[in-house]
Amino acid sequence: MNTTNSITPREKDYSQWYLEVIDAAQLAENAPVRGCMVIRPYGYALWENMQKALDGQFKALGVKNAYFPLFIPLSFFQREAEHVEGFAKECAVVTHHRLKNGIDGKLEPDGELEEPLVVRPTSETIMYEVFSKWIKSYRDLPLLINQWANIVRWELRPRLFLRSMEFLWQEGHTVHATQAEAQAEAEQMIKVYAKFCEEYLSIPVVTGRKSDCERFAGADITYTIEAMTQDKKAIQAGTSHLLGQNFAKPFKIKFLDEQGKEQHGWQTSWGVSTRLIGALIMAHSDDKGLVLPPKIAPVPVVVTTIQKKQIDPELSKAARQIKLELTKKISGVIELDDSNERPGEKFYKWEKQGVPLRVELGPKDLAQQSAMVARRDTGTKEVVKLTQLAEYCQKLLAQIQTELLAKALKFRQANTHPVNEYSKFKESLENKGGFIQAHWCGSAKCEEQIKAETKATTRCYPLDNPQEDGQCIYCGQPSTQRIIFAKAY
Amino acid sequence: MNTTNSITPREKDYSQWYLEVIDAAQLAENAPVRGCMVIRPYGYALWENMQKALDGQFKALGVKNAYFPLFIPLSFFQREAEHVEGFAKECAVVTHHRLKNGIDGKLEPDGELEEPLVVRPTSETIMYEVFSKWIKSYRDLPLLINQWANIVRWELRPRLFLRSMEFLWQEGHTVHATQAEAQAEAEQMIKVYAKFCEEYLSIPVVTGRKSDCERFAGADITYTIEAMTQDKKAIQAGTSHLLGQNFAKPFKIKFLDEQGKEQHGWQTSWGVSTRLIGALIMAHSDDKGLVLPPKIAPVPVVVTTIQKKQIDPELSKAARQIKLELTKKISGVIELDDSNERPGEKFYKWEKQGVPLRVELGPKDLAQQSAMVARRDTGTKEVVKLTQLAEYCQKLLAQIQTELLAKALKFRQANTHPVNEYSKFKESLENKGGFIQAHWCGSAKCEEQIKAETKATTRCYPLDNPQEDGQCIYCGQPSTQRIIFAKAY
Repeated sequence: MNTTNSITPREKDYSQWYLEVIDAAQLAENAPVRGCMVIRPYGYALWENMQKALDGQFKALGVKNAYFPLFIPLSFFQREAEHVEGFAKECAVVTHHRLKNGIDGKLEPDGELEEPLVVRPTSETIMYEVFSKWIKSYRDLPLLINQWANIVRWELRPRLFLRSMEFLWQEGHTVHATQAEAQAEAEQMIKVYAKFCEEYLSIPVVTGRKSDCERFAGADITYTIEAMTQDKKAIQAGTSHLLGQNFAKPFKIKFLDEQGKEQHGWQTSWGVSTRLIGALIMAHSDDKGLVLPPKIAPVPVVVTTIQKKQIDPELSKAARQIKLELTKKISGVIELDDSNERPGEKFYKWEKQGVPLRVELGPKDLAQQSAMVARRDTGTKEVVKLTQLAEYCQKLLAQIQTELLAKALKFRQANTHPVNEYSKFKESLENKGGFIQAHWCGSAKCEEQIKAETKATTRCYPLDNPQEDGQCIYCGQPSTQRIIFAKAY
Repeated sequence: MNTTNSITPREKDYSQWYLEVIDAAQLAENAPVRGCMVIRPYGYALWENMQKALDGQFKALGVKNAYFPLFIPLSFFQREAEHVEGFAKECAVVTHHRLKNGIDGKLEPDGELEEPLVVRPTSETIMYEVFSKWIKSYRDLPLLINQWANIVRWELRPRLFLRSMEFLWQEGHTVHATQAEAQAEAEQMIKVYAKFCEEYLSIPVVTGRKSDCERFAGADITYTIEAMTQDKKAIQAGTSHLLGQNFAKPFKIKFLDEQGKEQHGWQTSWGVSTRLIGALIMAHSDDKGLVLPPKIAPVPVVVTTIQKKQIDPELSKAARQIKLELTKKISGVIELDDSNERPGEKFYKWEKQGVPLRVELGPKDLAQQSAMVARRDTGTKEVVKLTQLAEYCQKLLAQIQTELLAKALKFRQANTHPVNEYSKFKESLENKGGFIQAHWCGSAKCEEQIKAETKATTRCYPLDNPQEDGQCIYCGQPSTQRIIFAKAY
């Protein structure tokens, strides 16, 4: 797609910029299967880093990983009415179990199944059928299960990482003895996601509760984390659902309580996906390409040599030594690039991949036993003594991590506007974009009208939302708190 | 399935024993979808340990992880004739992309696809279509890609871990500039698998080359590792394929060599799957349940207290301290079981899960500042001073690891028989089982006849096979080396 050194600037065409950043950093590409993506090694390394951090946190909370089938019988899928309604229009259906040669020599499906199988768009139904056999007594609770898996949802307008027919995710599914415990679990997990986004991805998120129209098909409550992109839209980065007993009843998840009385379990489910990579790109990257927070970067530092066409073995040797020293202090892969490419090209190659720090070592630097350290996010450079280099980089990486978060937070704050009149709402959305805090009566009708007229949707009621009397921006009916509206990915 | 303390003995019914071990250790169960399995948390923890060890080795060899689509267009699938022939009869086919309500209120498939999609039974075709775009010059080679993924092959007679409709695996796919490099890669990877089986799973394997009938559909050569189960059958535990240019040609994987000449790439693919868990169970487990080699055991040691109905806080405290000390020296999760269950039941619970070492701490032990250490594999017990406990366990775990391998190797050697006449072949297979080393002419006809008459298949020509003149056991034609025959899973 983009083979030269220039990426379409954000100002010119944000959507095109997004795709070109992905291409330039070799994160992913459209697969030769409509709507699917190929996650390339560098993009997959990002996903592995996210998995590692999240998986460790889940395990520390007592969650255990397991694996459930890819295929769901239609009959299971149909048991929870809202759930099937939510997914029936976008799922891949397996109807045959072999191929045969047709008359024209082309292969065609053969061996029709008695009951078609749905490729999981999410695993509530298949998991809960199994959970109902695992759970007998209150002693079996809480049941805390997580699955890392691929998911298929038929997308009509796919976009790399943000919406694709197949994507990778984790889905946690828990069963509790009481509603209060399930409620606490759903809240805890959305907070785990929020903390992960802020600490690892340097993405500030608004943690809140979805409106009834926007909640998960089959949930009582959906909690969400909403991030702001640089084009001032919202992006849902993770969700956690309080399922109540909506699935426990049709799937007969029952247990004997301490008094020997049969009860239905209370459930939650929660997930984040490779969509996080999309949110990450949109949060920090610039017109030169990807910008990555150090904690999640597959390569936190690259050591480069500045040299003539003829490779200087002394420089290479010193660069190798620097790499060694950095490896001792910094986690992640420290790359060494002592090729004879021209410095400009060499630097740009690593810049567009978002490597947070670039160490530059030329003959003059080496003579003075120092090196230049360049920051990817700000572009600033500093000369550092080799003896202090590892410690300097270590500290600077930590600083970049928090500065990226602070910058994104400031951006979000500057682009969050309280609005009290519908005319101003439309004007603000059109001219300023961002998050709008507005009163809304809670009716689906107003929400749908606003969406139809402005393309803005309700994102969430923030968890720490102040109570405040007001009037619905659309119909004027009373409201007790504001909700965040935004155009969203 | 099995709720009491007794597992059907191997001698009585090996197949039933196998399923009951899986059930007793809660490794997996049949899913409510025909032919699929649910991998339960303890089984998945085993898989995670295998993944971690293998993934580290792949990365150390320069292999990079990526992710390719689940779905393969029929047209790709058809490009390599042998390949499609090998998989067409056992693949799930997606034909629709949504569901609608039928007249009877039941859901039915809707939105028929123009081109049906095959759920990947292996990913050569989808990956190589993409590789052809990635590779342009010799500088892009070797390309070393691995994918951890789920795979679907329609199995008519599924069995947990050994054959299931869906399973988890890794598939490595590489492209090289020369045949020699591809050859070396294919051989290297089968050796990586063999070493992994021996070092981590304590499973000795015969590393060898498949006959033409048994090789992978589309490969020039298939290398295999073959293990022996306790019922003296063979189990294929991993394969590595030299694909030559069989896929490179139809998928147009071409590069410009150093002389600027266009060449087709040379390829390999290689994989191991959750089938390894089946091989592991069959290698070491006994009539009390699972036996695990320490390096792969999710829980290498459990610390148990022997106590009355009333839980003794002193004992619990001392047991917690022991757990802490063990955690410092031993990797993996050290479990503590200070429940008031009766010792017999408590011990059995951990035995059937195959925990390699059980530390028993009773009031008398504590008084003497010692504990009893029981080995799962041999059942032997020894009193050990608490001050020496961690070091003792650490050493003993390493010892168990090698002793399990030595025991399995001895078993295989004792059950490998050279045979020179077909009547003796049938007799040996019937009465002794195991591996039979016999001459075979190399013709598919003899191989098929032998299989039809005895159920034995050729397993492999061992890599270090001595050359020896002989006559095909079936037809008497000349042969230059023996091949291993066995009944196989």
